[in-house]
Amino acid sequence: MKPLKNDTYLRALSRQPTDYTPVWMMRQAGRYLPEYKATRAEAGDFMSLCRNAELACEVTLQPLRRFPLDAAILFSDILTIPDAMGLGLYFETGEGPRFERPVTCAADVKRIGIPDPEGELGYVMNAVRTIRRELQGEVPLIGFSGSPWTLATYMVEGGSSKAFTKIKKMMYAEPQTLHLLLDKLADSVTSYLNAQVAAGAQSLMIFDTWGGVLTPRDYNEFSLRYMAKIVDGLTRENEGRRVPVTLFTKNGGQWLEAIAATGCDAVGLDWTINIADAKRRVGDKVALQGNMDPSMLYASPERIEQEVAGILEGFGHGPGHVFNLGHGIHLDVDPEHAGAFIESVHRLSRPYHAG
Amino acid sequence: MKPLKNDTYLRALSRQPTDYTPVWMMRQAGRYLPEYKATRAEAGDFMSLCRNAELACEVTLQPLRRFPLDAAILFSDILTIPDAMGLGLYFETGEGPRFERPVTCAADVKRIGIPDPEGELGYVMNAVRTIRRELQGEVPLIGFSGSPWTLATYMVEGGSSKAFTKIKKMMYAEPQTLHLLLDKLADSVTSYLNAQVAAGAQSLMIFDTWGGVLTPRDYNEFSLRYMAKIVDGLTRENEGRRVPVTLFTKNGGQWLEAIAATGCDAVGLDWTINIADAKRRVGDKVALQGNMDPSMLYASPERIEQEVAGILEGFGHGPGHVFNLGHGIHLDVDPEHAGAFIESVHRLSRPYHAG
Repeated sequence: MKPLKNDTYLRALSRQPTDYTPVWMMRQAGRYLPEYKATRAEAGDFMSLCRNAELACEVTLQPLRRFPLDAAILFSDILTIPDAMGLGLYFETGEGPRFERPVTCAADVKRIGIPDPEGELGYVMNAVRTIRRELQGEVPLIGFSGSPWTLATYMVEGGSSKAFTKIKKMMYAEPQTLHLLLDKLADSVTSYLNAQVAAGAQSLMIFDTWGGVLTPRDYNEFSLRYMAKIVDGLTRENEGRRVPVTLFTKNGGQWLEAIAATGCDAVGLDWTINIADAKRRVGDKVALQGNMDPSMLYASPERIEQEVAGILEGFGHGPGHVFNLGHGIHLDVDPEHAGAFIESVHRLSRPYHAG
Repeated sequence: MKPLKNDTYLRALSRQPTDYTPVWMMRQAGRYLPEYKATRAEAGDFMSLCRNAELACEVTLQPLRRFPLDAAILFSDILTIPDAMGLGLYFETGEGPRFERPVTCAADVKRIGIPDPEGELGYVMNAVRTIRRELQGEVPLIGFSGSPWTLATYMVEGGSSKAFTKIKKMMYAEPQTLHLLLDKLADSVTSYLNAQVAAGAQSLMIFDTWGGVLTPRDYNEFSLRYMAKIVDGLTRENEGRRVPVTLFTKNGGQWLEAIAATGCDAVGLDWTINIADAKRRVGDKVALQGNMDPSMLYASPERIEQEVAGILEGFGHGPGHVFNLGHGIHLDVDPEHAGAFIESVHRLSRPYHAG
């Protein structure tokens, strides 16, 4: 493996000094880039793109060719694990992901096995290995997974949801069934992420997209507890370097202290929290990732720069901040605005890291 | 007008002693009740039901015949104001509300007038008068409106939204246009709510369903500021009694202090916040309404009772709590579970109000 040329992102996650604030964008490889759309068309459907290591590598690298991003993130989907569990993932145009065989009862949960990361999920590890090789040490590679709770919502609802009726019925009427499912998912995510590290991922992120629909007590019991279990089971050092773990619960701003107490290295923030408040609450324990509203990229480069300046000022001096959007980049954003965003972060952050 | 027999709800909102914790349910008149479905079928479509004072009164009273609720709420829709502004509201089956003529630019905003509450919106005032008469003083009647920001999201997006792309584009690229729209909406909501009070509403509630999708700064600038302006302009006393105002921002748990500082009487809570924390933060300024997850009504009556007990214990002794769900009741809830919920609140709350 080539030595890492730009380790700013990894240093920031360990709250070590850097020259500037590193930046990457959730969903940076995606439909806002015309070159992504071309590769996707070549691959056929979305999952064929995920399953093709060369093409998954290609789309992972595309945003890095355009922008001086400080990290690459594996191109994949959070639903690879439920798919490998045999639920039959498919995508309905304009409808998002669906499962042919959702989980409806205790018997369904009992039947589920832990997927082999180098078996059914081997295509993901192949993608990680390919990307890592092609990155040639330019920037670190982030591996990721959905959180057990978030994966379970799709598995029980059979797809995306608004009110999460089915999984909440299960949670309140049959909590042991849901716990059994979450336990299996936590084991699966742990082995999946550890395999990604073995294959070359240098940092890990767990996306808890739907933890924010829970009460504080249910969040602790059904989401955070399983993320903490995963954090405990992860390989935290590889190739002589720490492999930092970032936990991100969308709409989890009220629970930052609890998230920071899991032993993770960093906490992801959406845009509904002021980063100065977040730093006051947990910034002596963990690094923070975030937190610009992705819709800000619709604004003019001047307005974007102003927003970047405000967030940098909110975090203030010193290390421990990885700049990002508070959620994935929207598919209809002008790539030039993304470029202006990244350039602003790099330029405007230097004074906060001087002397 | 007959004198009010049960003023527990109004007393709780003014943080005066009561014998028990009053309870009502957001969307208590609705599709989970078979008698509602029958009346709705009689009316034809949803807006015809809203426009028919006798039938709107009938569905408002239906839940009160089943359950010992401590308040009635006007049966109507938050989108009556944009409809009266000429946007052409219609409902697409399974798709939610839509507008034929959404607001797309400054010229559209400039064309909009302030609807006359006794003109285009006279059907709402007729419903209020009819309901108030038929209630015969049993419990107080709540009038309501959507918040300017929430109404604007539907008007600019043309209906429901997930990412609020269009309105955020307007917010970041043309903030003055959005401010002009919000100003007109604030004026409209103020005169609409004051007309509801004149027609007989004894308490008011403003629903800010979508304030939680904003950054803290944008929430203050584009949502809360306009709700505060409305609160300032409302009739706060009528028939010799205070007309209390409740503000409810879904996913607004991080901003309770700011909401409580507007001069409102009560703050609505969704279920993502612990009510004990909320009381510690703002409970000396305002009453609190909430905060059980509506999905809890899918659970067994025993589990519902356990949850009610936990929330009552969280709020603790003394006045100032109106029990409610953290959002509208789901359409597929068993009415018996709603009954068990209401009965639990009444029974279990008495010790918290004793001597």
